[in-house]
Amino acid sequence: MRFPDIVVVGSGRVAEALCRELPVVQVFARNPERGHELAALAGCRWESDPRKLAPAGLYLLAVSDRAIGEVSASLDFGGGLAVHTSGSCDLNDLAPNVARRGVFYPLQTFSEGRSVDLGGVPVLIEAEHEADLAVLEHVASALRGRALRSDALLRRKVHVAAVFVCNFVNGLYTAGEEWMRDNELDFSLLKPLIAETTQKMLASPSPRHVQTGPAARGDRPTIEAHRALLENRPDLLRIYNLMTEYIIENQINGKF
Amino acid sequence: MRFPDIVVVGSGRVAEALCRELPVVQVFARNPERGHELAALAGCRWESDPRKLAPAGLYLLAVSDRAIGEVSASLDFGGGLAVHTSGSCDLNDLAPNVARRGVFYPLQTFSEGRSVDLGGVPVLIEAEHEADLAVLEHVASALRGRALRSDALLRRKVHVAAVFVCNFVNGLYTAGEEWMRDNELDFSLLKPLIAETTQKMLASPSPRHVQTGPAARGDRPTIEAHRALLENRPDLLRIYNLMTEYIIENQINGKF
Repeated sequence: MRFPDIVVVGSGRVAEALCRELPVVQVFARNPERGHELAALAGCRWESDPRKLAPAGLYLLAVSDRAIGEVSASLDFGGGLAVHTSGSCDLNDLAPNVARRGVFYPLQTFSEGRSVDLGGVPVLIEAEHEADLAVLEHVASALRGRALRSDALLRRKVHVAAVFVCNFVNGLYTAGEEWMRDNELDFSLLKPLIAETTQKMLASPSPRHVQTGPAARGDRPTIEAHRALLENRPDLLRIYNLMTEYIIENQINGKF
Repeated sequence: MRFPDIVVVGSGRVAEALCRELPVVQVFARNPERGHELAALAGCRWESDPRKLAPAGLYLLAVSDRAIGEVSASLDFGGGLAVHTSGSCDLNDLAPNVARRGVFYPLQTFSEGRSVDLGGVPVLIEAEHEADLAVLEHVASALRGRALRSDALLRRKVHVAAVFVCNFVNGLYTAGEEWMRDNELDFSLLKPLIAETTQKMLASPSPRHVQTGPAARGDRPTIEAHRALLENRPDLLRIYNLMTEYIIENQINGKF
């Protein structure tokens, strides 16, 4: 199978990652500054005029969820395959006039200006035609990712898990930072602990096997002392209570 | 200053880490199996008879919080410095008959059978005598850690932060694993995302700068779709709601 010519539509974080990793013939985006930036990363041209959208085998629409419908309706992909890259949206969120539609959702967190290794990253793919799935598998391989066929429900379920282990984990890092700052302590003191916590879990068969702390050992006096300290931060206290309860409940159920 | 002869008391995870990293002249522990194991790691002898406790300059009591009082009361440290290694306990939790008392709390998570790099790890130290603080600073350096003088209140505050960024983060990994298993999905799909989430935060000036996800962008339709999916797991739904609320609140306050 011939590798498709690829146009990236959008200039956000996912678009940037795709431009860093894939051979791209055109970056199509409204924002000139980011458009130029991404085109430079990909070594191609930036375009914002819909009439000058390059003919391509694959259009990767890395735009915000709410823009998928409008952007896909406004562009003429000809006979090309057009896919969105969202974990939350349906294939049908692409405009119905698009001839070949699909989804290409890399299960990773992306940032501006940061190169991310996509080796081993699952890419959840969906398409209306079998041949298009093969194209998407091919492109996932070029990213060194693992293509997995997935419908919208499965994608959304995986997205829920991602919210817990990525977005909420970062929320806890923020909670830790706030607490340290409240107490005039340097957040960076926690960084070796944070690094080891995640590395250890990744090396273990299950996070259950490496759960430690006052909740895991049912250490009530320490939990009470912590609650007293958190009195002035009811938002952090609520998180403390709920996560402690969750870990203890799991222990009672013999899951840890 | 002469480096002190060190005896490790206890055979848990912290004791193991100390035996891996420090020159230890004796491992004193009740459990023969673990005692032998740790003594082998340290290249010294195991002992369990209080009358045969080796004379030493420093006794590192790496025992459970509730055992600190009893164990320290039952042993004759002579003129040696005896310190516990707990983030939750006071110096006064060591028996009053101990001549030189202190605390040596490494801010790290330890596991059986896993070697942990202690380079850069803060070690919160406390002692009744200035000269003993210097001894503990010396030992922290031998671990390549960063000694920080700290009283019980500060130690406990740092411990609270550690619970958020270590124990609760691992609790979220467990929540993610449970959710994946409920849906017959392989937890390991999330591992590249988990690794990148933490690496990215560690490389950024603040976790606020790298917060992503539906809550951070105020994406209500996705949040509602996730809540509907979580209906059958009220425990996970509670965590979802509270962490989402925390992230949104922080955004409203302009903190992210």
